[in-house]
Amino acid sequence: MDKPYVMGVDIGGTNTEFGVVDARGQIQYRGKISTAAYDTAEEYVAALAPALGELINEAGGKEKFVGIGIGAPNSNYYTGCMEFAPNVVWAKKGVIHLADMIKEATGLPCALTNDANAAAMGEMKYGAAIGMDNFIMITLGTGVGSGIVIGEKLVYGADGFAGELGHMVVRPHNGRLCGCGRCGCLETYASGPGIARTAREMLEAGWDEKENRERSLLRDISDREITAEDVSLKAAQGDELSLMVYDYTGKILGEAFANIVTFSSPQAIILFGGPSKAGKLIMDPVGKYMKQNMLQVFKNRETGDCKTKLLFSELKGAEAAILGASALAWDFNKTSV
Amino acid sequence: MDKPYVMGVDIGGTNTEFGVVDARGQIQYRGKISTAAYDTAEEYVAALAPALGELINEAGGKEKFVGIGIGAPNSNYYTGCMEFAPNVVWAKKGVIHLADMIKEATGLPCALTNDANAAAMGEMKYGAAIGMDNFIMITLGTGVGSGIVIGEKLVYGADGFAGELGHMVVRPHNGRLCGCGRCGCLETYASGPGIARTAREMLEAGWDEKENRERSLLRDISDREITAEDVSLKAAQGDELSLMVYDYTGKILGEAFANIVTFSSPQAIILFGGPSKAGKLIMDPVGKYMKQNMLQVFKNRETGDCKTKLLFSELKGAEAAILGASALAWDFNKTSV
Repeated sequence: MDKPYVMGVDIGGTNTEFGVVDARGQIQYRGKISTAAYDTAEEYVAALAPALGELINEAGGKEKFVGIGIGAPNSNYYTGCMEFAPNVVWAKKGVIHLADMIKEATGLPCALTNDANAAAMGEMKYGAAIGMDNFIMITLGTGVGSGIVIGEKLVYGADGFAGELGHMVVRPHNGRLCGCGRCGCLETYASGPGIARTAREMLEAGWDEKENRERSLLRDISDREITAEDVSLKAAQGDELSLMVYDYTGKILGEAFANIVTFSSPQAIILFGGPSKAGKLIMDPVGKYMKQNMLQVFKNRETGDCKTKLLFSELKGAEAAILGASALAWDFNKTSV
Repeated sequence: MDKPYVMGVDIGGTNTEFGVVDARGQIQYRGKISTAAYDTAEEYVAALAPALGELINEAGGKEKFVGIGIGAPNSNYYTGCMEFAPNVVWAKKGVIHLADMIKEATGLPCALTNDANAAAMGEMKYGAAIGMDNFIMITLGTGVGSGIVIGEKLVYGADGFAGELGHMVVRPHNGRLCGCGRCGCLETYASGPGIARTAREMLEAGWDEKENRERSLLRDISDREITAEDVSLKAAQGDELSLMVYDYTGKILGEAFANIVTFSSPQAIILFGGPSKAGKLIMDPVGKYMKQNMLQVFKNRETGDCKTKLLFSELKGAEAAILGASALAWDFNKTSV
């Protein structure tokens, strides 16, 4: 191949990580700068561009590169802009034409999308979705994001912002207040903080103090400090309440996935991110409730199983964000910029 | 144009209607046979094919036709099969290779899909969605169906059955029992029978007998006979309870549409079918609650309005099903069969 590399850039609220990626999904060179240390997008790009340039030179120069792919919050693929991204200092209050700025500074074509869409692209190029043309990526973390692929293409929607399944309202009555200002969003239950909140609510209600249940191991941790990881650790030790937290989370996710399947009947729903590392603890209840709630036509007539598979991401955690972002850039091989 | 016509066939449980359609969506010739009078698919096709042949000859012969498009319940575009269609005598208990059978009997290429998908195709070719590449058709009738278009293509999903939004569960707690065997499906609230049921429930609860409200005009109709059309007529006369039925229906639909937008962020959601004929009575509350429940990013930043438009179908009622089915067949111009 003429151009063996793409650059993947993952912009988080605190740091920006980037790497030179080859077609098999190996990160050959990598680097990092601060995101938060700059007041304006101009200053940020003035720091990022030479850092990228350094890696580009190490890898043999610009002519070896198909392009640059960027994953960043509140990003619009169509416009190449970050729009009012609350967690990024220099993108909080306006529309930043980031793809154009980086293209100009580096001389390479540049595409931008949000983190969950980037993860979906990465999964299709290097991970569990290789060979699939219809799947949905669900990213569980501080929030819940999604990337929807139909016909081998990401669904961006009319405005570039499609795929916000974390903000499907799954509890229209008495739902939890969400950061978006509405109530009952999937994210308030299935994100890391959502899982921790379920645990806290159950402890507060004294779930483990009733009907001869065992005192929860989570009571050894100060209430306000409980995290989804704690719940996962205690559940792995057989803590009844922690297991019940996963059952509840699985019910919410399983119901939501059954609804999502009525939309695009995907080959697979792929779980990604911190809380998905609980493995079977989360996957088993999600699978159980997804099956219980699935419309008949989306089940195999003989086995009764859901046609849509439930899978874990196969991108390695630390590298996933860079790989995902980089996958965007391979498309410059297909289409003109 | 070489081949100026397509044939549209609409298979209902009772009758099958068909027509010769030109590129502007004019039905030039039309016909009808019984669906229910035949015991086997073979007998049905043996009756349908000559009836289609007659119109084809009137229109100048096979060489004038691009192909045949069929809209039918429980139909799979990928396989060309009707599968276990509960309301069609000869398709109740198995998989009928209908597209192949009709192709063989007529010598014309033939495509098959369900009614709601056909309606979406019709809308894109001849109706309110001309020029759109991303919209969702919601068909309100005995049930609630949907046809989802993304990138100018119908979303069929991995198995050919995508787009069952009538079976999104919108009330996970204490939802109404649905014909599908689950509870809380959109269809149990927003279909014609669902709207009538809301009215009956409000009458039974004596909604109009409380707090100095006026006695509902619906009380002049025997409880079990109330239809969505009655509700629409009485609401148009200012009946408070009937208006409240539309407010409730609008809340359910508006919330569901806000959820649907998080998936594909469409340019428009288009309402089709009997209950949508209530016009402003249904559209105003749907619009109100859709806006109330819409995630900020899917609203226009200046006006606060939803980016996704809410529209009525522009296909004429009686002809819509034939037009929709016929629209499928134009695709034979683009792709090989």
